[in-house]
Amino acid sequence: MLHPLTYEPIVRAALAEDLGRAGDITTDSIIPADATATARLAARKDGRVAGLDVAIAAFRTLDPAVEVAVERPDGSDVAPGGTIATVTGRARALLTAERTALNIMGRLSGIATATRALVREVEGTHARIVCTRKTTPGLRVLEKHAVRLGGGFNHRFGLDDAVLIKDNHIAVAGGIRPAVERVRANIGHMVKVEVEVDTLDQLEELLTLPVDVVLLDNMDPATLRRAVALVDGRMVTEASGNVTLGTVRAIAESGVDMISVGWLTHSAPNLDIGLDI
Amino acid sequence: MLHPLTYEPIVRAALAEDLGRAGDITTDSIIPADATATARLAARKDGRVAGLDVAIAAFRTLDPAVEVAVERPDGSDVAPGGTIATVTGRARALLTAERTALNIMGRLSGIATATRALVREVEGTHARIVCTRKTTPGLRVLEKHAVRLGGGFNHRFGLDDAVLIKDNHIAVAGGIRPAVERVRANIGHMVKVEVEVDTLDQLEELLTLPVDVVLLDNMDPATLRRAVALVDGRMVTEASGNVTLGTVRAIAESGVDMISVGWLTHSAPNLDIGLDI
Amino acid sequence: MLHPLTYEPIVRAALAEDLGRAGDITTDSIIPADATATARLAARKDGRVAGLDVAIAAFRTLDPAVEVAVERPDGSDVAPGGTIATVTGRARALLTAERTALNIMGRLSGIATATRALVREVEGTHARIVCTRKTTPGLRVLEKHAVRLGGGFNHRFGLDDAVLIKDNHIAVAGGIRPAVERVRANIGHMVKVEVEVDTLDQLEELLTLPVDVVLLDNMDPATLRRAVALVDGRMVTEASGNVTLGTVRAIAESGVDMISVGWLTHSAPNLDIGLDI
Amino acid sequence: MLHPLTYEPIVRAALAEDLGRAGDITTDSIIPADATATARLAARKDGRVAGLDVAIAAFRTLDPAVEVAVERPDGSDVAPGGTIATVTGRARALLTAERTALNIMGRLSGIATATRALVREVEGTHARIVCTRKTTPGLRVLEKHAVRLGGGFNHRFGLDDAVLIKDNHIAVAGGIRPAVERVRANIGHMVKVEVEVDTLDQLEELLTLPVDVVLLDNMDPATLRRAVALVDGRMVTEASGNVTLGTVRAIAESGVDMISVGWLTHSAPNLDIGLDI
Amino acid sequence: MLHPLTYEPIVRAALAEDLGRAGDITTDSIIPADATATARLAARKDGRVAGLDVAIAAFRTLDPAVEVAVERPDGSDVAPGGTIATVTGRARALLTAERTALNIMGRLSGIATATRALVREVEGTHARIVCTRKTTPGLRVLEKHAVRLGGGFNHRFGLDDAVLIKDNHIAVAGGIRPAVERVRANIGHMVKVEVEVDTLDQLEELLTLPVDVVLLDNMDPATLRRAVALVDGRMVTEASGNVTLGTVRAIAESGVDMISVGWLTHSAPNLDIGLDI
Amino acid sequence: MLHPLTYEPIVRAALAEDLGRAGDITTDSIIPADATATARLAARKDGRVAGLDVAIAAFRTLDPAVEVAVERPDGSDVAPGGTIATVTGRARALLTAERTALNIMGRLSGIATATRALVREVEGTHARIVCTRKTTPGLRVLEKHAVRLGGGFNHRFGLDDAVLIKDNHIAVAGGIRPAVERVRANIGHMVKVEVEVDTLDQLEELLTLPVDVVLLDNMDPATLRRAVALVDGRMVTEASGNVTLGTVRAIAESGVDMISVGWLTHSAPNLDIGLDI
Repeated sequence: MLHPLTYEPIVRAALAEDLGRAGDITTDSIIPADATATARLAARKDGRVAGLDVAIAAFRTLDPAVEVAVERPDGSDVAPGGTIATVTGRARALLTAERTALNIMGRLSGIATATRALVREVEGTHARIVCTRKTTPGLRVLEKHAVRLGGGFNHRFGLDDAVLIKDNHIAVAGGIRPAVERVRANIGHMVKVEVEVDTLDQLEELLTLPVDVVLLDNMDPATLRRAVALVDGRMVTEASGNVTLGTVRAIAESGVDMISVGWLTHSAPNLDIGLDI
Repeated sequence: MLHPLTYEPIVRAALAEDLGRAGDITTDSIIPADATATARLAARKDGRVAGLDVAIAAFRTLDPAVEVAVERPDGSDVAPGGTIATVTGRARALLTAERTALNIMGRLSGIATATRALVREVEGTHARIVCTRKTTPGLRVLEKHAVRLGGGFNHRFGLDDAVLIKDNHIAVAGGIRPAVERVRANIGHMVKVEVEVDTLDQLEELLTLPVDVVLLDNMDPATLRRAVALVDGRMVTEASGNVTLGTVRAIAESGVDMISVGWLTHSAPNLDIGLDI
Repeated sequence: MLHPLTYEPIVRAALAEDLGRAGDITTDSIIPADATATARLAARKDGRVAGLDVAIAAFRTLDPAVEVAVERPDGSDVAPGGTIATVTGRARALLTAERTALNIMGRLSGIATATRALVREVEGTHARIVCTRKTTPGLRVLEKHAVRLGGGFNHRFGLDDAVLIKDNHIAVAGGIRPAVERVRANIGHMVKVEVEVDTLDQLEELLTLPVDVVLLDNMDPATLRRAVALVDGRMVTEASGNVTLGTVRAIAESGVDMISVGWLTHSAPNLDIGLDI
Repeated sequence: MLHPLTYEPIVRAALAEDLGRAGDITTDSIIPADATATARLAARKDGRVAGLDVAIAAFRTLDPAVEVAVERPDGSDVAPGGTIATVTGRARALLTAERTALNIMGRLSGIATATRALVREVEGTHARIVCTRKTTPGLRVLEKHAVRLGGGFNHRFGLDDAVLIKDNHIAVAGGIRPAVERVRANIGHMVKVEVEVDTLDQLEELLTLPVDVVLLDNMDPATLRRAVALVDGRMVTEASGNVTLGTVRAIAESGVDMISVGWLTHSAPNLDIGLDI
Repeated sequence: MLHPLTYEPIVRAALAEDLGRAGDITTDSIIPADATATARLAARKDGRVAGLDVAIAAFRTLDPAVEVAVERPDGSDVAPGGTIATVTGRARALLTAERTALNIMGRLSGIATATRALVREVEGTHARIVCTRKTTPGLRVLEKHAVRLGGGFNHRFGLDDAVLIKDNHIAVAGGIRPAVERVRANIGHMVKVEVEVDTLDQLEELLTLPVDVVLLDNMDPATLRRAVALVDGRMVTEASGNVTLGTVRAIAESGVDMISVGWLTHSAPNLDIGLDI
Repeated sequence: MLHPLTYEPIVRAALAEDLGRAGDITTDSIIPADATATARLAARKDGRVAGLDVAIAAFRTLDPAVEVAVERPDGSDVAPGGTIATVTGRARALLTAERTALNIMGRLSGIATATRALVREVEGTHARIVCTRKTTPGLRVLEKHAVRLGGGFNHRFGLDDAVLIKDNHIAVAGGIRPAVERVRANIGHMVKVEVEVDTLDQLEELLTLPVDVVLLDNMDPATLRRAVALVDGRMVTEASGNVTLGTVRAIAESGVDMISVGWLTHSAPNLDIGLDI
């Protein structure tokens, strides 16, 4: 659940970034201050809606009396041309906030739509699609929320809420065991520990240690299948690397629990959404 | 030119977003506080470098004594595997700032690389590639900078630094002429005025008015060519709509001055950049 | 148009600056929390009203239920003793916000009043009165708004929304031509270019270059008249330097398009406005 | 003493206000990044220097390596054409920060110069010149500092550091005595209490109460003299109202301890200071 | 009187600190978004209520429609099990804001309760209980408010609203007299001056100087009594050092005006308050 | 590890809170700007040092050239009178930052000292001492750090980094099982789940569910022992409620893994630390 406390500062900063110092000099010159209008937020392409609440906050920030009729709330599917919501209020507010609202919704809906596509691909398997920390600076909370709206799940939100031991950590520590031991000696009991392995040999060593999740990095589906068998339910298994719409099904069928995908949040194309007045 | 005054708050906010409350609990548990390391920022794919200064600021924020040897500064081309820079400092700082630095550089270099591709396509023509206001909330200045590093130019930075009269404005004003007149009566003398037209009829009306730039929206190359002939140098011409690597050459050859492209900043995929320690 | 998004942070900061840590210890000690009062915002001298919306925001911040009856909105003229607005609400809120509200309105109305005086002086001529970047740190948007309410127009709002090439730039570039060329090679197509000249010789060189506005600095009316004739409508002309109520008419009659005045925003005396309870 | 902690945020905000999103597009287009220059901060008119440290911070923010040779530090007198300081550093930094530095120094030096004039007028008398809370929103600390540099003293800094009971408070409380009693029952023992009186009758009543300072508002010099005699050293006396360069001497000769002047901080004209490169 | 302007930023920051990036994942997973509930704020121990307005702001920030029935407002006494207020609103908001609200109220009520205990001990004497600057970073205004709600009074709020000359200042100045003289030459007329003395000899020297308050540090009751006799009403007397519930009565009976207590704000234990749904 | 990025804003806000608008008027009036001094941070009582880095940052903020010789770094034990560090720099900076530095260090060292006492009590047992979310608003990161310096461990840092299902959640969900199921369906795979139980019956139900940690609330040592036996290593066990120096040993000897203590962070008295110049 996104609190306004979380997204309102982002909306206000985005509006301020667009208004600059002099404000919307086009709209303010042409549109009378008391003119009202109704605008339709509509998808130009098929997709999953995300960020509508945030977009509405953009309009409300400029006109607190804006009225919104939501047809497809966050998490709904929308067809090309489908109306997402209708917004009625001061015409100036609608025109001035338009770009900010669309920039946010387009990005978040793009992420939700890409997530939905991967989730549909793995339907029927055991695997969950999860995102990473490869997010846009300042928007992580919103982007992780969009992944959930697309049917995915969230990996850790930052460096502080879970442990992920990678190759560099292992190299400096002098091995997987000492790395895990140092972590166990320092962290609290509410923190999960994941370790990245590249080979089945590393995995076998790992299975003797108190670890919650294993990250199987860049393994092909056959290797993943052997890894899953080796783990045999003793840890959560997560696959990463080279995940596309074309490969995700085979990865999922290896039996892994989680498939993490960086490009969901850093390279999913915006969903094309327009505002028709 | 990007001032640290501009990007340091973005870097600090991005680091804080990733550090959360407890900081990098993996690195702090495993890596000794006084360990030092050297890391190589390297491209995994061919591209144009952008955001290196900002990425360096991320490392410097955690370790002010970090030393950086730059091989390919902002605006350089880099081949797959090519080293962009080498960073030496406290190992904890390098590992903790890694994701923040890469998230920023990956996004900005992705934009610069996409811009470069379009610019190369139109080489030899008159046309300049320009970006729009379809940017990521909070990152507009950085993303517009990346477009310039890719060889493109910037359209207006916000609603306040230039006038762009669109169809909605014209509809409320009751025509192009009254819209332009209201704008001229209100704005300062240092502000340019652009008007969007969809047809050549609209263009003819526009040519009788004091306008600096005409936005020719969603016209095919043949229509664009006729529009350019009609304008005959009396205004700057800008084409938009349906611009891809496949279409941009034909659009440019119509003789337009500017080609504006929204997806450069909202949907260009990240450039894959890694940090090897 | 000023958005609350723009001025509310200024109002809140100004109130916080005055409240300090312990708040209004005089009013809180003496006035019961539930006492209400009506206060009249009245001009002590003749002037043009500016900043009323901002002042009202100061009262509303301390008492959201304040009711305001506006008699002379922003942009109106007011005679000595004339009521600008009547404010009804909690007595503590009125007394505590009084100084903040008056400090803002006094300053902005002072600027609007000074602008009005210059505008009246040039009535019947072609010239517009415009302000500069010589504004109070933190208040530029408000002060530029006050100039518009006084009947003036705005020059650029900052270093980024238009180009103004001054003598120092020309000196480093090695001449007007290379300076203009470097600018043209770098800036976007929505940005206007102005160049400052001190002599008619410089002006003649300038007229061969792609420049939108010429700043005729510190020229007497006779020279300005010759400059206007030389330009002959090919550029917008702007005069600056030594503009006072006594000189502005003669400058305007030279035929220049714009007269820019620094002291409007940095040295116009406050309009004396009081709050009578 | 002004701490950088106090003025750096003001300087950074002022620079950001001027740089906007795209920065100094004129300077960045024309001046090479590695060009250096020396600039001379010089007064165009006679005055008292204030705000030099703050102005230097503006240059340092853009170029931390700037070197400054101060000739006339804050609090010095400067003649027309006199050099205040010489600044050497990157040419871009000097040109870009110029307006911000001058806007701050011009305003503060204007206040210091006006204060100096009043202080000189009352030389040889007992009276101190003090400022009020009629300051520019956001700049109170700087403006009060400028008053001290001009030889004046500060009245209270806000609503919370001292009590000032005015006519409105007295009216609601039902008299001077109950107002003073309510204050005494509520405030701490480190807070001074001042009461405004308009007549000698009010003053006589006041003299029976535990009050530290009396504000004699809008009294002519003869009445002030009688008031001072009445008080006879039992309270500090402060005169306010109609204080100009022409009237201040007579007011001071009445024997009052303090003369408070609102226009020092809200309407003193800027001191004209330039930057010669 | 605490303005929302003062405490709302503290509340929002506290909520943001607790919500982190992902929000209340327990409550959001389990409690339906539209479920409502009523919660009772109740004391587990006997005490004095403080911070209720601030706690309510925590609930309101997450659910603006929350309704509150206050039984024991700030400044009331509450018995173990006594209801302070009843809060009705969205169940998620109540559960999510619970800890923030209780952390604030528990701390402030703890301070008020400890103050009340000291105030009751000195009942019938002349002495007032006052707090110091030994407060929690960021919460000084709230903690000083809690002291007042407990029946105490406030010493200065910071380094800027009153002078307190301590032994280190005296040592550098070369004596009490030069220290006081330097202060008198620099400060405004609305500022009180206090000097700390450790012996009666120092006190005798001090009595010849223009000082408002004397801080009698670490003197036993007998010495305090002699000090009060020496001062004989010429200054306000303040005792500090070794003030406990066991010693405060004897200190007060020495006749001092003020007793200042650091631990009220830095070490008073929280009042145990719970939220029962 | 605490990053300056984390604590510098807290330090700057704390200094600003103490400096107010006019700064340290006592020190600035008396101490010459160029005077230097050496100050000794010394404990008045036996304790564990915490917050030294943060305190040093307070001095450095006012005088970047301050030199510090650390004798007992964070995490060291100090005896009454023992020197923690020696600070040399501008005398004004030392005196002005003193209270801010001591307020922070006193609070954090108080928490570390209290934690140390509990940790020592349970020495030889299996149990770890952990803190809760009952922290001071704005200081949670620092206070949790102090607990670690005292030898304790951290429970979750907020509502978002781990799940803790309490009685209210269970009541609304209609039982422990549906509550756990809803959580499992929503949260990511890197998040641990804890459930609070009050009785052994509840515990038995819980043991059939996928839960990581059980919170045994308010059970006496005998019941705890039976609970630990029941769990038999299948979950982490945590005891809470009525934990004091007198009871903690018996609780630990029950065999629980964790003992959580709210008062460590909300009611531990400050460690008395002084600054001797």
